[in-house]
Amino acid sequence: MSSKRARLHVALIHWPVLDRAKNVVVTNVTNFDIHDIARASRTYGVSRYFIVNRLKEQLSFVSRVLEHWRLGVGSEYNPSRKTALSMVELAETLEDCLKLFEERPLIVTTSARDLGLPKVTFKALRERIWSGQDRDILLIFGTGFGLTEEVLKQADLLLEPLKGDSPDNFRHLSVRSAVSIILDRLLGS
Amino acid sequence: MSSKRARLHVALIHWPVLDRAKNVVVTNVTNFDIHDIARASRTYGVSRYFIVNRLKEQLSFVSRVLEHWRLGVGSEYNPSRKTALSMVELAETLEDCLKLFEERPLIVTTSARDLGLPKVTFKALRERIWSGQDRDILLIFGTGFGLTEEVLKQADLLLEPLKGDSPDNFRHLSVRSAVSIILDRLLGS
Repeated sequence: MSSKRARLHVALIHWPVLDRAKNVVVTNVTNFDIHDIARASRTYGVSRYFIVNRLKEQLSFVSRVLEHWRLGVGSEYNPSRKTALSMVELAETLEDCLKLFEERPLIVTTSARDLGLPKVTFKALRERIWSGQDRDILLIFGTGFGLTEEVLKQADLLLEPLKGDSPDNFRHLSVRSAVSIILDRLLGS
Repeated sequence: MSSKRARLHVALIHWPVLDRAKNVVVTNVTNFDIHDIARASRTYGVSRYFIVNRLKEQLSFVSRVLEHWRLGVGSEYNPSRKTALSMVELAETLEDCLKLFEERPLIVTTSARDLGLPKVTFKALRERIWSGQDRDILLIFGTGFGLTEEVLKQADLLLEPLKGDSPDNFRHLSVRSAVSIILDRLLGS
């Protein structure tokens, strides 16, 4: 990792998000969201990975998983898993997550909806990260059927959508795949 | 998808693979390996996604998951999941998988081990795919602690390893993340 580039952070938001019918809901944390995104974050030199969920039971579940791999049997069984999971942090809301920074980071989001946010291409964001003009950049990702307008409006930039190469323009990546690909596009060598 | 480019296929191999102690084992199919890789494959215009496992119970498990989303309650609940999972095929071995092609595809693998296979960079493989020189290319991925030498030796090309940007060169992506990133590098727009 170059010392010049911005520190990149990832937040996976489970509340408030939309469900299929556009209701505001809390989604459950999936075990693979913890592991896969922590491993990708650690591989790409992300500094902090926040799991955001306001339900105490959900945060307890994540804590138990983290404890198993950081301190418990898992830490001896799989030390590289321990390394990856050591970067995971919990927060109840995006606001709480932002309080954990000395200065407000630049917030970048992805969304199929266009809310009038300034747009940024992968190329431009990559250049911006590596130029060192920002100290901290926080990428926020939604679960369920996407982030609410309230959360999206807190973002400074909207990242261009990922496009594959399907003949019918099918685009339904898991959030785990999307985070991995976006980190590779922004930070990959 | 351009009609000129090679058809790309993905095989996720659960046997024979190595475990931590280098024993040859069969690994279990993870539900997220079915979904995440099918969704990424469909998004990037992969033609066929093979789940390779020689255990009948494991193949039955995958069949039940596929049936739920293709024909059962899931197909109405989430039609895009149905679309993605419609491309999944099952095979007991890599040999069986190869029999499903009219002509033997070019086989490309990834491995941390160097077995003297000809190497190919992402850039060169991407150009080769888009040049249309091959009709079919099969990317094979291992689970557990990697493919056995016996399987690796069947490959024609070894793809360069993914490198992130971690200060200590940590590189432990999940197979789901690795497949997603590799498809983006080879087929992404």
